[in-house]
Amino acid sequence: MAVGLGPLPTLHPVPGFELGIASAGIKRPGRKDVVVMRCAEGSSVAGVFTLNAFCAAPVILSKQRVHGPVRYLLTNTGNANAGTGALGLAAAERTCAKLAELAGVPAEAVLPFSTGVIGEPLPVEKIEGALQAALDDLSENNWAEAATGIMTTDTLPKGASRQFQHDGVTVTVTGISKGAGMIRPNMATMLGYIATDAKVAPAVLKDLMLDGANKSFNRITIDGDTSTNDCCMLIATGQADLPEVTQASGALFEALKQAVFEVCMEVAQAIVRDGEGATKFVTVQVNGGGNHQECLDVGYAVAHSPLIKTALFASDPNWGRILAAVGRAGVPQLDVSLIDVYLGDVCIASQGGRSPSYTEEQGSAVMAQEEITIRIELGRGQCSETIWTTDLSHEYVKINAEYRT
Amino acid sequence: MAVGLGPLPTLHPVPGFELGIASAGIKRPGRKDVVVMRCAEGSSVAGVFTLNAFCAAPVILSKQRVHGPVRYLLTNTGNANAGTGALGLAAAERTCAKLAELAGVPAEAVLPFSTGVIGEPLPVEKIEGALQAALDDLSENNWAEAATGIMTTDTLPKGASRQFQHDGVTVTVTGISKGAGMIRPNMATMLGYIATDAKVAPAVLKDLMLDGANKSFNRITIDGDTSTNDCCMLIATGQADLPEVTQASGALFEALKQAVFEVCMEVAQAIVRDGEGATKFVTVQVNGGGNHQECLDVGYAVAHSPLIKTALFASDPNWGRILAAVGRAGVPQLDVSLIDVYLGDVCIASQGGRSPSYTEEQGSAVMAQEEITIRIELGRGQCSETIWTTDLSHEYVKINAEYRT
Repeated sequence: MAVGLGPLPTLHPVPGFELGIASAGIKRPGRKDVVVMRCAEGSSVAGVFTLNAFCAAPVILSKQRVHGPVRYLLTNTGNANAGTGALGLAAAERTCAKLAELAGVPAEAVLPFSTGVIGEPLPVEKIEGALQAALDDLSENNWAEAATGIMTTDTLPKGASRQFQHDGVTVTVTGISKGAGMIRPNMATMLGYIATDAKVAPAVLKDLMLDGANKSFNRITIDGDTSTNDCCMLIATGQADLPEVTQASGALFEALKQAVFEVCMEVAQAIVRDGEGATKFVTVQVNGGGNHQECLDVGYAVAHSPLIKTALFASDPNWGRILAAVGRAGVPQLDVSLIDVYLGDVCIASQGGRSPSYTEEQGSAVMAQEEITIRIELGRGQCSETIWTTDLSHEYVKINAEYRT
Repeated sequence: MAVGLGPLPTLHPVPGFELGIASAGIKRPGRKDVVVMRCAEGSSVAGVFTLNAFCAAPVILSKQRVHGPVRYLLTNTGNANAGTGALGLAAAERTCAKLAELAGVPAEAVLPFSTGVIGEPLPVEKIEGALQAALDDLSENNWAEAATGIMTTDTLPKGASRQFQHDGVTVTVTGISKGAGMIRPNMATMLGYIATDAKVAPAVLKDLMLDGANKSFNRITIDGDTSTNDCCMLIATGQADLPEVTQASGALFEALKQAVFEVCMEVAQAIVRDGEGATKFVTVQVNGGGNHQECLDVGYAVAHSPLIKTALFASDPNWGRILAAVGRAGVPQLDVSLIDVYLGDVCIASQGGRSPSYTEEQGSAVMAQEEITIRIELGRGQCSETIWTTDLSHEYVKINAEYRT
């Protein structure tokens, strides 16, 4: 069902960053469900984490440990280790300690990540049993296998890669992500891992991560349900033969920032394209806002409206539902007579009512497309925001009604 | 599909309040789609109206006219006359003027109400053509017919009635409502009409309406989509042989307030029971909040979560989704270790994790019921709020994908 999402593009290896995949049989025997990533010594690591107050045990641990030297990222699917209290925290610590022991590093150098069903005890022994195989599998050429290994209800693996030249040296940025439901990232996505071989100090890397995530992962929504397990990590191995990148690095900093942003955007949008039951990829663009928050309020009111999402599924240009959502978004003193709404390039509503030039045929032609842009001009100021989302289909209900069966 | 909603109860006539039904053939020939209500001269009228900024033309007009003497309420289904701009306002004025002319009252004494598809021009001639038949049909005994006449995607008519005695005089409060989708009333419901034969001054009636609506209509949600056309009206004809009711009337005031509240609650909950595609009637109770707003934020996060709603549809006690919704509700400094969550009487989560005593069998037994209470104890203070909602089923998607076909 994925919309405009093909096979993985070429994912360039990142020198100093290796990935290993193994099967712990957490949900189904034989399924690849454990991914270990190794960062070369001296790597910088930055992360953004869910703002959900019920954040999962691995999130709590990773948030603490990301500030120290990080050598390994340990991901399991099939179990989120969320809503598991003190026992869950101990379980996450145990899997990290085991990996640290096998790898000969301090336990604090291992960051855990989990995704899957909430509230079940983490099967620690199963995961521990798969760690050696994952370590044996470590290779810089395993990005595609890792992208598959972190999938849950995803139908396709998600990844993106960019390279640029600086002073004759090639710099690589490669990333993968997973997620298809419980998606409204809040400072991060479900799970994302992006690595570069540039040398970047932790503070600068953190800014790059925040900037990259803010306009990509933090602007996608499938069902408005912010996950307990959202994490996105950015790793800089420093293996490229270039000076350390800082905000004062000029062209190198700008090129790296752009590459990180493009990888973030591509893997974030891939999550929406593969949204549970998605048949449409929808861009909601809000312009002319008095401030960014009111643009976001309007955008999310539209992007979360079950009535708009079912109309999108039906390819029905029921634009009245868009007006209704804009009107209930809570923007203070909203003057509807200044508002224009476009479906693609078709003006469907102007001055608060149906556009005089609009015909149902024009709306239907836009709605029949797989990729649709809804543009709302508020006429209040100069601010804009863009959000990406999906429709709401029978398949979404089916997937989520049957998720645990 | 309606949950726990049977045939209409006995709807006692309200002396001084008559209802007439006719067919204008707005959406389908022969369908009863025009309802006229006449209030006896001297009646007081109070109303609450949608806070959607894109409110419909009839809402704009009724909000203005409710402050003057009101004699007629004119309702049509099949067309919401919303998102129709200046032309829509003129159309609403024309239908009112025609009714006023036929009835021999000033145009300002007629309040219009519309419900149905948004953004289509109101078929003024069709409605005008049905007005004389509706006037000819006026009777105090037509509550049930009117409850049917105002239906759109409703599967059953909705009404409630209460009587009480005061000083040997019987006082009646009877009400009807409609609505099944685009339901998250904000100061009102889709459409509700409640009448009493008590004598009540407009200012007191307004307070009764606000109090009644606030804990009933304003606490139900089906899909979070606040309508452009929500209105709820309370009419007091003053025909009961009793003194005028004021806040100082003691027992009479309290009895009337209670009766109005009970009628509001019964017809508001009836809207949820008949929610589009509903297979469950769900009560979300949030206790122990530090203030009412945080209780509402948590309650609506749960009530609007597509993941919780699909789990309810599947009768799956996937309580991790409830924790995740509570955690993302935006309550500042939420201490998850103080939170308990109950499904019915079963404690599913305590201290932020799965309750040690919880078994999946217990959760499944509650989930198998048609009426389910989710209770969240925040452990932060003394405030409570309750919200009523439905599940999200295949049928909801089907109804809303095919709404205009």
